[in-house]
Formats: sequence, structure tokens, C-alpha cells
Amino acid sequence: MNIIELYKTTRNRTEAICNPLNTEDYVPQPSEFASPPKWHLAHTSWFFEEMILKKNLSGYRKFNPYFSFLFNSYYNTIGERTERINRGLITRPSVEEVYQYRQHVDSHIEILFKQKVNKKIEDLIILGINHEQQHQELLLTDLKYLLAQNPIYPVYKKKYSLVKDENLEHGFVQISEGIYEIGTNSESFHFDNEEGVHKVYLTNFEISKALVTNGEFIEFIENNGYENFNFWLDEGWSWVNENEIRSPLYWKKIEDEWFHFTLAGLQRINIDEIACHISFYEANAYATWKGMRLPTEFEWEIAAEKLNWGKRWEWTNSSYLAYPGFKIATGAVGEYNGKFMINQMVLRGGSTSTAKGHSRKTYRNFFHPQYQWQFTGIRLVK
Amino acid sequence: MNIIELYKTTRNRTEAICNPLNTEDYVPQPSEFASPPKWHLAHTSWFFEEMILKKNLSGYRKFNPYFSFLFNSYYNTIGERTERINRGLITRPSVEEVYQYRQHVDSHIEILFKQKVNKKIEDLIILGINHEQQHQELLLTDLKYLLAQNPIYPVYKKKYSLVKDENLEHGFVQISEGIYEIGTNSESFHFDNEEGVHKVYLTNFEISKALVTNGEFIEFIENNGYENFNFWLDEGWSWVNENEIRSPLYWKKIEDEWFHFTLAGLQRINIDEIACHISFYEANAYATWKGMRLPTEFEWEIAAEKLNWGKRWEWTNSSYLAYPGFKIATGAVGEYNGKFMINQMVLRGGSTSTAKGHSRKTYRNFFHPQYQWQFTGIRLVK
Amino acid sequence: MNIIELYKTTRNRTEAICNPLNTEDYVPQPSEFASPPKWHLAHTSWFFEEMILKKNLSGYRKFNPYFSFLFNSYYNTIGERTERINRGLITRPSVEEVYQYRQHVDSHIEILFKQKVNKKIEDLIILGINHEQQHQELLLTDLKYLLAQNPIYPVYKKKYSLVKDENLEHGFVQISEGIYEIGTNSESFHFDNEEGVHKVYLTNFEISKALVTNGEFIEFIENNGYENFNFWLDEGWSWVNENEIRSPLYWKKIEDEWFHFTLAGLQRINIDEIACHISFYEANAYATWKGMRLPTEFEWEIAAEKLNWGKRWEWTNSSYLAYPGFKIATGAVGEYNGKFMINQMVLRGGSTSTAKGHSRKTYRNFFHPQYQWQFTGIRLVK
Amino acid sequence: MNIIELYKTTRNRTEAICNPLNTEDYVPQPSEFASPPKWHLAHTSWFFEEMILKKNLSGYRKFNPYFSFLFNSYYNTIGERTERINRGLITRPSVEEVYQYRQHVDSHIEILFKQKVNKKIEDLIILGINHEQQHQELLLTDLKYLLAQNPIYPVYKKKYSLVKDENLEHGFVQISEGIYEIGTNSESFHFDNEEGVHKVYLTNFEISKALVTNGEFIEFIENNGYENFNFWLDEGWSWVNENEIRSPLYWKKIEDEWFHFTLAGLQRINIDEIACHISFYEANAYATWKGMRLPTEFEWEIAAEKLNWGKRWEWTNSSYLAYPGFKIATGAVGEYNGKFMINQMVLRGGSTSTAKGHSRKTYRNFFHPQYQWQFTGIRLVK
Repeated sequence: MNIIELYKTTRNRTEAICNPLNTEDYVPQPSEFASPPKWHLAHTSWFFEEMILKKNLSGYRKFNPYFSFLFNSYYNTIGERTERINRGLITRPSVEEVYQYRQHVDSHIEILFKQKVNKKIEDLIILGINHEQQHQELLLTDLKYLLAQNPIYPVYKKKYSLVKDENLEHGFVQISEGIYEIGTNSESFHFDNEEGVHKVYLTNFEISKALVTNGEFIEFIENNGYENFNFWLDEGWSWVNENEIRSPLYWKKIEDEWFHFTLAGLQRINIDEIACHISFYEANAYATWKGMRLPTEFEWEIAAEKLNWGKRWEWTNSSYLAYPGFKIATGAVGEYNGKFMINQMVLRGGSTSTAKGHSRKTYRNFFHPQYQWQFTGIRLVK
Repeated sequence: MNIIELYKTTRNRTEAICNPLNTEDYVPQPSEFASPPKWHLAHTSWFFEEMILKKNLSGYRKFNPYFSFLFNSYYNTIGERTERINRGLITRPSVEEVYQYRQHVDSHIEILFKQKVNKKIEDLIILGINHEQQHQELLLTDLKYLLAQNPIYPVYKKKYSLVKDENLEHGFVQISEGIYEIGTNSESFHFDNEEGVHKVYLTNFEISKALVTNGEFIEFIENNGYENFNFWLDEGWSWVNENEIRSPLYWKKIEDEWFHFTLAGLQRINIDEIACHISFYEANAYATWKGMRLPTEFEWEIAAEKLNWGKRWEWTNSSYLAYPGFKIATGAVGEYNGKFMINQMVLRGGSTSTAKGHSRKTYRNFFHPQYQWQFTGIRLVK
Repeated sequence: MNIIELYKTTRNRTEAICNPLNTEDYVPQPSEFASPPKWHLAHTSWFFEEMILKKNLSGYRKFNPYFSFLFNSYYNTIGERTERINRGLITRPSVEEVYQYRQHVDSHIEILFKQKVNKKIEDLIILGINHEQQHQELLLTDLKYLLAQNPIYPVYKKKYSLVKDENLEHGFVQISEGIYEIGTNSESFHFDNEEGVHKVYLTNFEISKALVTNGEFIEFIENNGYENFNFWLDEGWSWVNENEIRSPLYWKKIEDEWFHFTLAGLQRINIDEIACHISFYEANAYATWKGMRLPTEFEWEIAAEKLNWGKRWEWTNSSYLAYPGFKIATGAVGEYNGKFMINQMVLRGGSTSTAKGHSRKTYRNFFHPQYQWQFTGIRLVK
Repeated sequence: MNIIELYKTTRNRTEAICNPLNTEDYVPQPSEFASPPKWHLAHTSWFFEEMILKKNLSGYRKFNPYFSFLFNSYYNTIGERTERINRGLITRPSVEEVYQYRQHVDSHIEILFKQKVNKKIEDLIILGINHEQQHQELLLTDLKYLLAQNPIYPVYKKKYSLVKDENLEHGFVQISEGIYEIGTNSESFHFDNEEGVHKVYLTNFEISKALVTNGEFIEFIENNGYENFNFWLDEGWSWVNENEIRSPLYWKKIEDEWFHFTLAGLQRINIDEIACHISFYEANAYATWKGMRLPTEFEWEIAAEKLNWGKRWEWTNSSYLAYPGFKIATGAVGEYNGKFMINQMVLRGGSTSTAKGHSRKTYRNFFHPQYQWQFTGIRLVK
């Protein structure tokens, strides 16, 4: 696919994800960490407008000068922005206007393509596409989180009830001690946080081919996993008790049977399915209970070619920190990754909700250890 | 107007208030104290369904059994309810379904009217009408509060820019010492909290015919009213400092000129207009600064016939407490007023947003002393 | 007793209250609402220094200029003060220095007395004495609250285990409808908040001669009083649930028997003793459960001569508001009472910990409706 | 020094640190993260009693059975404990009793030594000594934090005003790329978190011989370091703004000159002194502003022999995580380190307040990135 096709495919997929929504569903922000669909739709367009069109398409007129402020996520370089927690209160512009905004941006990106597009602009467009792919997954995680607050268990798409993400392989892969190379210097697109091939020294380890299933996680629960402090990090133990966590997110026991809220509404849990919506604290506690541990992100990257990955984002026991030689780019683009390198844990792989072709084995995703609302699972090392 | 006409007029006015809204505007809850328009629309219908149709129309089938839970405000008697703070996250049912719900309720109330309606049912319908009138004003206060969160100052209705609520009279009314009668035993509709004529003893006082204007309030601000602890109650002073209050709600100083957000968007302040969106703390501080005081609710009620009232709800220096002989009714209706008789101050009168004929001189409105978002103003006593 | 004797008696009693304490007990502040003993000792001296000696004893040198700042409670007029919540962190001056401070103040008050003392100074000294008597009771309530935080149940004084506060009378007193006079214009000392005789109109009522006992309150508990929303004000119901209140403060059920923490350590509850450490919310809920109500402060004052009062502060269903003609004095003394006239309920009477001769039938005590840590009880009206 | 001498020396030093304190100073807890001196004194004794005497000295009787509960820090294995935040409210036992407790424990440890002491017990005693040395430094950091809350700037020891911690060397040390060994398998005492020699691969780097001085840090401040988001991690930027941080802890600008609170009271800042009380966020921002970075803990460990270290704990850009093969010991001792391996950053080196001989180049200290109250400084890498 060439760049313009990739651009269009990506932009269309975002809208296709929103297709089953009512206008009302686009509006609320159910938590500080989850944004409204309308905001995702607008912000991904804002990215192209602010980072590319404004500076590179001569004569470009902004669709609406206020949007620069309304749909900025966290770019201090670009100026003031709405309080993150208030995104759900911005009822105007309407959903329809946001779709017009998308079209406005799309038509001008097309105009830009018809002119000569240099490497730097092309790179920014590819960054914008990848940025939008990330928001596609967030659209789904945030939307699920929103609908889950509604006591009547609304259905996003019925077909989600048919999906069964099961493991294809079992057993362990062995990796032997030695120096390995991590990161990438590839010509193809990658984020700045994975840039820079560098050596690490690993000792022997064996890594599971399968991810932990719902059935296995139920065993942990039934073995009082959530009641025994020995399995938990100290802050994990506080998190469990203060929030009365007794299962992965969206699980609910009804008359002795486990159900979970899905994008197809409330469903009985399939014990062979790969467990999902698990925080780092829970992943770590599960591993400790099992007498194993989580992989580091380096072990994961080296083992990746021998693994079947991509149904769940996999928690690693690595903090999200800079690779040797990491440099923050100047300007707004430099705020993309580097400033988040504290208090977050690295996830590797991808999920069934990740855009096709978006992830790769050097890809570094990251979230705080208490978050459950992403499509996250557990792979063990012994 | 007979009861059925009053019912229809009231129900129509609620929808007329919502007429200028986008679907998006119906959804968010901007604060714990302000509900979404969709919720007001549904809850006022829920009141008729739960309190009247369910028990009195034989064969009545609820529009949707979940609504009983979703649109309960605070009636513990009726069962569980959505957490008050989460009303903005309920995107389903849609706005359209809520309008269908209203129609369903309306058509069944009509059927009920065609059957014989006894006094008890009639009284409940009149209560429901008055309840809905209260929510009409809340619709406007909450909607204004919602739109005010949006940095682009959306317009609800342009015609609000033409309204100028000015005082019609000036000077003071004198009331002389003696025993007076407060409250009502009237046959006409009134709430339980105003029921029961009883005597109070008042000393001489003079009460202003005019309410405090924007211009007068600006004097208070310019005399450092918000910076001088001497004018403030202790908890008012904390409120001012913790929330950095420096003006009534919605006011904004732009290049040395005062503006305020209105239902017609941002407007220059008219100094002759009656000041609005004032908390009890501010009203009390203003009165202290002026060397006067607020009336008690009894003084207000006795003076009312000699006053021109109804442009702003007027803070009194009376706590919201029971009249002698007050009895809480059994069942859900009993939760209407009595359980709120703590920590709130009485407001008397009415505002330009109050439904016509809704208020009367014995009417007791009540809010916490820190709230500014109602249409509240100041009348002084010396 | 003449003034100087009363001064000495009062000052000595404060120190006698502290006599059984370790140095350590003087230091901590267990809550925002409860101050350290050391602070009470110093603040009561500060009051005499700031309000009297500084201005009226020529050549007076402050004991330590920093104390003006350290031991100010809430007087904005006098200048900055330590954050209320940080009183427990001020380890210097030491307890010994605070006793020296007291002596310094005492010896200078004596010098002042030897000079001519005019009426204004005399009045201020009497105010200071009454202020110190108020802090004597607070010393006991705050100290009890502090020791109660310690899981080993420390004993303040063994003799407290012998005290049994029981009712001396039973039955009801009848008061008939009419105009009554409230408040005082007496020459003897009284606070500004009780000043000003004025008329109120009361309807017939009967008021209990006895206060509610522990045994009676246990009935309320065993009748699920804390689990039934019907008995509670709405904010009381939230308070009960958020704080998981299931009994008066300091009560603890051990193997099916009720105990409570006392100044003599943990003791078995005596069912004939008058219930104590009850919030307004609980008092109101109890009355509702019983089918009765709390008296207003006016009813209480009129009935007072026919009642045996003074073992518990008695909650009334009156908010703490100004009497007609109430004026706030200028200067620091004016901050004594008036600025607290919001969100608090009036208590009448006195407790077994109140200094002898301190209270009277026109005396108005006041606390927020959720507080349990004062020596508070319940008298009913029907 | 043999073990028993080391034991005595350590125990004596703890008491020597407390020597200048008033009884009052022993009591308060100024923050959730800082414990009262009395608690440190008792807890370090509790450690020997619970971990050693209880199980290994036959016939040992606890000094007071309640202490097991009162002075447990975070050992879930040993049972319930006082809420961490309430340590400052435990006025009984008195300071004197705590000193008796220390003596009781000391005399029984001596008895134990007179009997045969096996390797396992000896190891536990050495652990207890190292544990107490850690608390010696915490005693000083927590005490400083407590005294700093007092607006009169109390003096702990005058002699601290004479101390000037300056750099002895300048310039950079070069380390070349390659495989290096990290951690220890030594026979001598070390914590479980530094156990296990393992290889890491490092690239070339140059590390500063000097730590950042007050003068250099003032340059950062004067270059608007605290106002420019570009230098800050995102959560660091929130921390700066929410807490209005504008300097290292204890700094105060008085009439254009920088002072800081020290253990000798308020002192003028010496610009040649090594900067102290710096959070990781500030250290990282400073490095970014300077165009350099913080070392990783591995770089630090390898460079350590060529560096002069030990005046400040030095922030590294490494998260506190397990070394390969790390195993948590069973029982209470296993709660020492492992359960804190999340959300904390590693510090290396030691400070002028660290017990002599306590630290070493493999030593891993760790704190959350926002904390300033430890004796922490900055070393740069380029």
C-alpha cells in the first residue's frame, strides 16, 4: 500500500469503528484515562492539521481556530488545552461537525499529496497514521469502558459474542545466555522510543508459548489469590484493597458463574479464552503465585520470533525508560513518547484490537501498573 | 386551566425548553449537583410512572423496566438507583427513546384521566406537575452550567441577550413588630414543607423594594469585598479562598471590563441588571459590607405582599427546618422535602426561569450556602 | 468569688486537668477538629496576652513574640497563624516552656489587677475566663479522642470508671402555647450570641425530663436503626454509610457485649447511663425512630427551669443563627461567635465536663451535625 | 569489629542521634512518609525481638505483647499493625518506656550471644544491625522534616551549621563499551536485592566526578527551570505545578537571597556546597536542561571505583526492579525488599548521614520520584 492509500484506509477504519454508535455514545468521558469517541475522532484530525497542514500546505485555513485548543491532548508546545478531565463536557462542536472536520482535513491532505511531498512531510504523515492507529485501539478500550458503566449492558456489536481468542500453541521456548541486540535502526516507520540498536546481555530463560487463560486465572482467584498478600507487590496490595479488586476488569459473578461485559454485552466466560483486562499488579501476582515471573521487555523481544503473539498486550517486568542514546526531538513531535518515561511498565506484542500492521517485535507500549482497561494479558517465564 | 390542560402545558414546556439543544447537549453531567437534560426529561416522566401509573392504572406496562432504576433521583423507598455522579455516562437509552418514554407516559396519563380519577390521584398528578416545573428551572440552570464549561461559549438561545431584568421599584418597606402568621393550610396545591399556619413574633424591620444590581455588586468587588475576611462567615471565607472566588458565577473580566456567560453566550454586563448567580456566602458578605443584613424567611413572607418579587430567588438568613407539626408522609412521596432539612438555607420568591404560577409567597426553596449556579440574588434588610 | 479568685481558680483547674498527662500526651493533634493539650494550655494564655496585656499593661513584654503566631486559633484580625491541621507538629516550645508562659501571663495579670482595672478590662478578663472554661471542656474531649486512637486503651484517670451519669427524673413537662422571651440582657457575663431579649411564639409541646440512656439507644441499634434510611436525614444517611457508623463514638462490641472507651480506659457499658458522644444526625434519627422529635432551642430555653439539665450537651433542632439585633463587635473579640453562624446546630445545657457555673439556660453552644466527639446526648419532645 | 561490638556501636549511635531531642520531639509524625523518632527507636528494637529473640532465645518473654502490633512497620507476615498514618498519635508507651524496651532487647541479645549463636542467627543479627543503620538515616531525614514544619526554625544541633559538603574532584571519568559484572555474591553482608553477579552490556559514557552544587542549581532556577515544561517528565511537570515547587526542599528566598532550613536552623545557602533534597523529577529536569542525563544504576556501579561518592544519595535513571534470579525469601524477612519493586527509582552511593560502613558500590537504595526529603543529589553523565 502506498502512503495515500494507507492514509485513507486508516482514516476510514476509524470511522468504521464508530459506525455502530449513537450520537449520544460519542459524548461522555467515563474516566480521566478514557476519552470520548468524539474527542478521538477530532484529535486524530487535529494531529494532521497542527503537525502538517498548518505549516506545509500554503494557504491552508484551519477548519475552526478553536479546535487547536479543544482537541490538543498533551502537547504543551502547541499551547493551552482543555482540562483532560473535562473532555466529556464539550458538546459543541457536534458529532456532525467533527465528521466535517475530518473531511476538511482529508481533502487538504489530498491536496498536499498532489503537490510535491518531501521526506520530512511524508514521515510526519506516517507518524500521523500510526498515531491514528493507536487511537483506534483506544477508541475500543474507552468505548468498552464507557458502555460498561451502564447498568443495562449495552451492545456495541453483536458479532463480538462470536470471537474466541484461544492459544494456538503450548509449552515453552528456550533462549540461551548471551549478548543480544535490541531496538531498531530500520528505514521503516518506528517510534523514537524503539530507535537505536543496542546490545543487552541475557541469561538463560524459558518463555511460555501460551498466554494465561480465563480458566487458569479462575484457579488463581479460587486459590484466594486476591486475599493473600504474599503474591502482591506492596502497592499492588494497597490497590487491591482500596479498590476491592477481586477479578479482572468487567468480570462479574452471577449465581456462582463468571460472566464478563464485552462489546457484545454481558457474556458467560469461556475458560479456554485468553485472559484479558489484567493490570500489571495482577499479572505479577499471578506469576508469583505460579512460581514463575513475567519476562523483561528484552527477553520478550529476543523470544518474539519464536512466539505467536498479538492477541493481548503482554505485560513485561520492565519499566518504560529510554534506550541508550535516546534523544527527544525538538518541537511538539518530541512530546510524543519521552516525557512519559516514568512510573509506567512496558507492554509488548499487540491485541486483537490493534490495527493490522501497526505493531512489530520492537514496539514498546506502556501503561501504569494499575490499569486494567486495555486489552492486556499474561505470558510467563520460568 | 383544568388539570389535564395544566398537565399538557407543563409537559410541552419541558420539551420546548429542550428544543434548541443538539443531541449531544442532552448527555453530559457537568457536576454532581447538575444533571443532564436527558435525565431531567426522563426523571420527570419516571415520577408519573412510578408514583401514579404503576399503582393506579390497571394493566399498565412499564415502558422499560430498567428505567425504574436509571431515572430514580433519590427515592430510597423505590429501590436502588444509578450513582448520582454517573448520570452523564448513561448514553443508552437514546434521547429519542426518552422522548418516546415521555409520550408513552403522557398517553397513559390521558387514559387514566378518561377513567374516574379520585382526589388522591389528582393530588399526585398535581404534585407531578409541580415536580416537573421545578425540573424545568433545573434544566435551565444545569444546561447553563454545562455550556459554560465549554471554552467556545456556545449559545443556547440568542433572544436571551435581549433580556434585561431590572428593578421596578426602590426604597424600603416598613413592617412593624407583632405576631404574624406563616405557612399555609390552603386547599390549593403547596408542598408539605410550607404546610401548617403558625404564629411567629417579628420585631420592626425595613426591607428593600429593590434587589442588588450588578453595578452595586461591582462596587463590593472594587472595595476588595472578596479580600477582606471581616465581611465573611468563617466557612464562606474558606470557600472564597479554596475556590479562588472573585465574582459571581459566570463573570469574567476581559481587559478591565466585566462580561458574563449567559444562555446567549458571552455578554457585556449591564450594571442596572439585578445581580444573579450569587451564593449565600456572597449574599451575606455583601449585606455585612453594606452594614445591613438578609431577611429571615418569616420577615420575607410577611413583607412579600408589599414587594415586587420573582426575578431572582432571594437568599434568606433562615436555615431550612421543619415548621411546627411537620410530618413526613409515608412512602416515596415522604422523601420529597423532609430529609433535606439540614445544612441548607431557605430562598424565597422565584426567578425569571421559574414556571409561571409555580411559586407563591409561602413557597420555600432551599440550597446549600456555597451554590452559585441557581438564579439567585440579594434583597437587604436594615 | 471575686474576679481575681475566679481567674486563679480557672487557671488552676486547667492545669489540674492536665496533671495526669505524660509529656508525650501534650503533643499530638488527632484530627483537624481536636487540638493538642499543649496548644490549649498556650492558646488560653495567648488570649489574655493578646486581648488584654498587650494593650492594657504598660511596659508589658511578650513572653515570646513568636507565640502570637503559634497560638492564634482563628483570629484573622491578629494576623497569620499556624495551619490548623499542623498544631500537632509544633514540638518547640516544650511543654515546660508553655507552663512558664502561663506563669508569665498569670503574674502580669496580677500586676494589672493591682493597678486600677476599668470595666472594659474587667469584661475582657471575664471573657478570657469563660474562654478558658470552654477550652477546659475541649481539653477533655480532645484528650479522650487522642487516647482513643491508641489500640492499648490508655487510662487518663482511673476514677472515671466510677462515674455513672443517670437520669434523676422521668416523664414529661408540658409547656403551653404563647409568646415567650428568649435571650438575655443581664448585667452578668454572657456571650454576644445570647444577647438581646426578644419574643418568640411557641405552640404547645411536651418535653422529656430524662435524656436517652445507653439501654434505650441499644434498642435503636438492635432495631436496625443504622440500616434503615427512613429515620435519617439525607446527609446523615450518607454520613452513616461513608463512615460506616454503627454506634455512638467510642462504642465497641466485643463478643456480643457493648463496651466503650472512657477516660478510665475500656469499660463495659452501663445501660442506665445517659447516652453520650452522639451526633446531631444520630440524635435526629433516634427521635424519628421513636416517633418524636428534638426540641428547638427556644422550646428548650423556656422549658429549662423545669428540667434537670447539665449531664450532656443537648442537641436542638435549631440552626445556629443570629438573634434579632445581633451586632458583631469590632476587632478580634468580634470573631468570637458571629462568623460561625452557618451549618452548625445549637446545643443547650452543659455536660459533666463543663466548668462549674460556666453555662446557663440562655447559653448557646454549637457544633456541626456530624460531630460525635463532644459530650452530647438526646432529649425528646412529643 | 566483631558482631557484638558492631551491635553495641550501632545501638548506641541510634541513641546518640536522639540525644539532643526534647521528649516532645519524639512524638509527632509530620507526614505519611516520615515516622516519629520514638517509633524508629522502638521499631528497630522490635525487629530484633520479632525476628530473633522470639524464636531463638528460649524462655524469652516479650517486653510488652502490644509492641508487636504497635511497632510493626509493614510486615504482613507478623500480623496486624497500626495504620501507618497514625504513628504520631501513640503517646503511650512513653519515650522512657521505649528506652527501657531497647535495654530489654539489648540485654537479651547479649544473653543470646553468650549462648552458641549459629550462622543463621548471626546473619539475622547482622541484618538487624543494617536495618537499624538504615533507620538511623531515616531518623535524621524524618526529624529534619518535622522540625522544618515549625515556623520558628528549631535547632537540632548547632554544629551542623559548620558542615560544608563540597566536591573534592572535577571533570569526567570515561568508561568504555563492553560487558560488565553487576551485583554481588560476596560472603559479607549485603541485601537480597543486590545479590547475584550478572552481566550487563554498557556502551561508552562519561560520568562527572563532581555532584551538582547549590550554585549550579540556582542557575537552573534562574533560567526558569521550574517554569519550562520542556525539561520535565510529564508527571514531574504535574508534580511541580500541583505542589508549586520552585526549589529543592527546605529552600526559602528571603529578600533576594537563598536560605535553607538545616539541622542547625535556618542558614544562608553556600553556593559551593553540593545540592541536596532534590527529587528524581528535579534531578532529571536539571540534567535535561544541562543537555546531559542521569546515569543508569549499572553505569554508576561500574564507574564507582573511579568516583568519590558518599555525600549525597545519587538518583539514577533506573527503576528499582529484580536482578536475574532474584528470589523472595520466605517469612517476614522476605518482605524486606522485593515487594517494593515498582514505581521507585534506584539511588546509589550514600550520604553524610549514612552510617559508616553501611553502604557499598553494589548497594541499591530506592525512593519514589517525587520525594525530596532524603539526602539526595545529582551526578551527570554525558
